Parts: sequence; C-alpha cells; structure tokens
Amino acid sequence: MIQAAIPLDIRIVLLAANASDGAAQVCPNVLVGRPDDPVALQELAQQCDVITFDHELVDPALLAGLERAGHTVLPSSCSMALAQDKRRQRRELGEIGVPMPISENVQTVDGLRRFGDRHGWPIVIKASWGGYDGRGVWVVNTADQAAEVWRSAQEQDIGLLVEEHLQLEREFAILLARRPNGEIALYPPIETVQQDGICRQLKVPSAIAREMVNEALELARAIAEHVGIVGILAIEMFVADGRILVNELAPRPHNSGHWSIDGAVTSQFEQHLRAVLDVPLGSTDATAPAVVMSNILGRGDGADPRDLLPRALAFPTIHVHLYGKEPRAGRKIGHITVLGTEMDSAARMADDAVRAIGGKAE
Amino acid sequence: MIQAAIPLDIRIVLLAANASDGAAQVCPNVLVGRPDDPVALQELAQQCDVITFDHELVDPALLAGLERAGHTVLPSSCSMALAQDKRRQRRELGEIGVPMPISENVQTVDGLRRFGDRHGWPIVIKASWGGYDGRGVWVVNTADQAAEVWRSAQEQDIGLLVEEHLQLEREFAILLARRPNGEIALYPPIETVQQDGICRQLKVPSAIAREMVNEALELARAIAEHVGIVGILAIEMFVADGRILVNELAPRPHNSGHWSIDGAVTSQFEQHLRAVLDVPLGSTDATAPAVVMSNILGRGDGADPRDLLPRALAFPTIHVHLYGKEPRAGRKIGHITVLGTEMDSAARMADDAVRAIGGKAE
Repeated sequence: MIQAAIPLDIRIVLLAANASDGAAQVCPNVLVGRPDDPVALQELAQQCDVITFDHELVDPALLAGLERAGHTVLPSSCSMALAQDKRRQRRELGEIGVPMPISENVQTVDGLRRFGDRHGWPIVIKASWGGYDGRGVWVVNTADQAAEVWRSAQEQDIGLLVEEHLQLEREFAILLARRPNGEIALYPPIETVQQDGICRQLKVPSAIAREMVNEALELARAIAEHVGIVGILAIEMFVADGRILVNELAPRPHNSGHWSIDGAVTSQFEQHLRAVLDVPLGSTDATAPAVVMSNILGRGDGADPRDLLPRALAFPTIHVHLYGKEPRAGRKIGHITVLGTEMDSAARMADDAVRAIGGKAE
Repeated sequence: MIQAAIPLDIRIVLLAANASDGAAQVCPNVLVGRPDDPVALQELAQQCDVITFDHELVDPALLAGLERAGHTVLPSSCSMALAQDKRRQRRELGEIGVPMPISENVQTVDGLRRFGDRHGWPIVIKASWGGYDGRGVWVVNTADQAAEVWRSAQEQDIGLLVEEHLQLEREFAILLARRPNGEIALYPPIETVQQDGICRQLKVPSAIAREMVNEALELARAIAEHVGIVGILAIEMFVADGRILVNELAPRPHNSGHWSIDGAVTSQFEQHLRAVLDVPLGSTDATAPAVVMSNILGRGDGADPRDLLPRALAFPTIHVHLYGKEPRAGRKIGHITVLGTEMDSAARMADDAVRAIGGKAE
C-alpha cells in the first residue's frame, strides 16, 4: 500500500508492531506499537485523515472508540468485527440468502458429534477467529478426533464453527472495492489454487463458466452493499456440486488480489486507497489475456531470498515481489506475476520462476 | 526509484539536499546533505553497496575519490563528467562518428559572430553545463544578441557551445540500460513533443520510419558501448533534413522514460536498479499498442496539485503520478500515462486528463 501511495502523493503513517516488519522497512513515517494498544492507536489517529488496515487483528471496540471521538475509520469498526468472526459472517450473510456451506456454531463437544452424524464424516472444524493459511482449520474423520480438537480449543478459549466437508470442484475469489458513496468496482473472478490450505497460485481469468461469473459478481455486489464495506473486500468462494458457495470475507487488500499489482489497470492497493479516501475508483480490467501469480513460500533454511533474485530476474518478462519478511518455512515471503497471451504457458512460466527463485512451485 | 526498489526488496539510502525533496518524503533512510559535500558523500558511501544518481549535478572529482577508496559508483565518475559537459559529449561522440548538429566550442565573442556568418543566423548558444528544460539554451538572431549572451555567460563563468539552428522534423529519445557485464536492453524509440524547450508529451511507438528506428537503436548501442555507461542512458535525438542527429545524453532515469513506469514490462527505474546492481535486465516491451505520457506543469498559483486528484482519477484508465514538489510555474510536478489501442485517442485522453488535473495541456 505504501508503494501504491507514492505516485498519488498520499502520505502514509504506519502503526507497526515491530520496526522490522516488511511495511515498516519501506515507510518513512512509522509508529512502533501494538494494534491493540489504545495509546498507539490514538497517536496514529491524531496524525491521519483516515485510518485503514492491512490486517484485521485490531480490537473493534477500540476502533469504535476512535469513531466516537470523530476519527474516520475505514473499513468501519463494524466491518472489522465482521471480518474477525466467522460465525458472525455466516449469520449476516445468511440474512440476505447468500449460499454457504452447511455449518453450525457448536457450544458442546456433543454438538460436533451430532453434526458429523447428521451431515456425514469427515467434518470441518474452524476456529471462529484468527485462522488463516490453513491454521485454525481441522478436517476430522471421527468423533474422537473431534473431541480432541474441542479440548484443545477450550484450553485456548477459541470458539468453534463446524461445517460440512465438501468435494470442491473449484475455488475462486471475487475482489471488489466500494467507496463511501456506494460506487463499486468489481475485478474479474480469480481462480485460487490451494495446497495444504495455502493459496499457491492465482489465475485470471478463472476457468469458471460464464453464467457462474455473473452470479458470483452479483452475489459479491449484494454482500458488499449489505455489509456496507468501504475499501477492498475479498470474498472467497467455492464451486461444489455445480453450485457457488461463499466461504469467507476479508475487508482489505488480500493475497488473492496480488495479481492486480502488475495484472490490472488499477492495483488492489491503489484501489483501496482511492476507496477509503473517497476519490473515483480506477479500472479493474486485466492488462493481459492471461495473468498468473504464484506465491513464494519460505524454505526455512535461513537463506536470504534476495540472494536468489538474479535467478528469478533471468526471466525477463516476469514481475518479482519480495516482502522483506523472515523466510520461515511455508510462510508467504513474496510472489511473482506472469502476464501472457495464454493461460497454460503463463502458468508454466510462473512455476519455473518460483522454482528458480528457490521457493516451492505449486 | 524508491518505488521500484520496494518490490525487489532493495534498500535505498538517500542523500537529499533538503528533507522536503520529493524523494526524501517517501524514503525511510534519508541523509540530508548537499551532493557536493565530501563528508555527506562519504557517509552515504559507507552505508551502500552501490552509489547511483537521479541527477548529474555531482562533482566527478569527488566521485573519483570515492572510487579510489574502493566504493562502487555507477554510473562511474567518468560517465558523470561526460553527462555534465556538453562540449565533452560532442568530442567523445565525434570520435566514433556519431552524427550531431554542427557545433563549436567558442572561446571569444567573435567566435559566435563568425559561426553565425558561416552557418547562418539564427544560431543556438548553449551553456556547456547545467542547462535543462529550456534553461541554458538561447536562440539568437544577430551578432549583438550573441554578444549579450556572451557577456552574461562570462559574468557567471559559464562555458558556451554554439550550434547551427535546425528545422527539426521530429524529436525523439532512445532509452537503454547497460550492465557492467555489457548486457544492453534497448527500449522502443520515444517521440518527444517539446514546447518552449520543455518536454510536454511522450508517445510510444514514435512515428519515425522503420529504417530510422533501426539506425537510431544501433547508434544508441554504439554510444553506450563507447562511453561504457552502466545504468540507464537516455539519448535525445533529432530528425532534421531526413537525417538523425544526436543532441545529448543523460546517464540516469530520465523524463523521456517516465512512460515506462506503466507502459513497459520493466520500468526505467527498476531497470536502472537492475543494471547498477548487475542482475539480469528485464523486458523493455511496451505493454500496450499506444502509450502516451503527458507532463503536468506547475501553475504557480499556490494551489496544491493533490486537491485536483479526484478530477484526474475520474478518468478510470489513466495512471497518475505526482512528485510531491512545490508547484512552481512551469515546473514538472507530475505526469499521467494513458495506455490505449490507438495513438490519436490515447493522446486526446492524455490532454483531457492533464487539463482536468489543472496543469496546462500540450
């Protein structure tokens, strides 16, 4: 977002938990402080016209306090609360008939067993708060395994959601931006290739059928309007049994939108800034017939990913992005984007480049 | 260049004359100091693997001192000396037979008169050092006017070059990057539309004839190799009397390359970083059939250009770049880029957008 702010001459003040955070390394105005520290948030608020986010782990009650004090928080404290709580998402989206996997809030360990017996095993148990990249999601085959997840969640005071286990035909995401005045800009659907619960590759255009594209875009628009989002909203969706089901929401620039930095007329980061500053949104068109983004995952062997840069740059047409993060095993530490005329060759080049840079290819 | 460094995780330490300079506003590591202060340069050198430049107003003798002390300076002190001195450029390029306007170093006021009488009036007098955007260039019609320029230059201790006045059919630029290992990447020729000595618009592809394109690219390659440039080299050229003539060189990312930020696979800024860090160069292909860049000039009325941003952003497909500079009248304070399928409509949209943002359109 800092990169996108430069050409528009938008000044960013960053509240970062650590001075070594990726964003803090490239921002000239950094406050070091925890996002749940009221004093740090207050200091940030006093320096900004608009407060926005690149993650959702901020206490909505603190944000509501800033709103009451007259500060502009976008997305709002309500949107942030919704983003954090999967159970609340299901409830709110249910109100407008959004198709979702069958799920239940469970209050007892017996609830898990009964859900499995009713809807079939395996079942999917999800932490209602804070999970991502496969963390906070457990696929369990038996009531005993379910009881174990339950005990562990109880110990950590984690609320649980239980969900039917679907045979997914395809996973994709809809990315959009919405301004306070209601203007919405929808990006083309993004195919997301997952492995071990982690998104490894994005493809635009997605291979989903034309009718389904329209249905997904209309669904996304309805969701954005119902929850009153301002800024970028990423909506993860499944195709199962030939039907679209909505999985979850993220109210911020999201990994599924990283293809847009090089592959769309307006990147999700610039679009987010435009939306929260309430200026006109930019075109969401793809800039090439085939755009592929592959994540680079840390190998955890202590090597600096920058040392492998020359090998990645030897692919003259790809775009390389490194996040300046400690390359822990399996962590997303960067991505590459390939723009091509045809999907298969673009995806092959993306795989080759990720292999060359030393990450694991999809 | 700071924007381009972010995705490659290249850390930049900036030596800026003022903390309010555009670059200093977006760089997390800024040393404030004059580029001709040996202590400031030394401090910069100690923090960097490579020292490079976004202007050429640095004393080559100081840079040579850093080189002798073992620091890597790219482009080299020799290239910087060449860039600063138009007379030296003419001499060095003459060695390899580069076609240039007829010119002379003048040592006396009579030399100006004799040049005019021999080659015809008007004549073009240029400061051999430090001129740009129409400053340091005088078109004079009579020996008396020439004598006046001479007196004023003497007072300010400015060396002069005198040149024939050409009827220019077209002006264009060749942009290239060269690595220490000799790898060269040439961008497509860039048509430069000048007004009052200031570049107002760039068009890629240029309208120059196919044979001339090849001649210009080969000429540029020969120049880059002869002067041993490392980094970006921008070469300004004319077409006059159906012939290509080389005007001058700039050994750094240059206004004529700003179209490449949004309009080429690899921007000149990323390319410059790749070249001086000696990693593989990226593709120089244009990303659209027609790319137009228009400079935004300051109006000098005290208005903040950012206040006009919403109007420029109302053109959903253009790219807006503001430099965070004080909007003095006639100063380049930003630019916009339009990517289109056809040149005339792209140029029209660029003009409309510049008008909307409040600068003067070409």
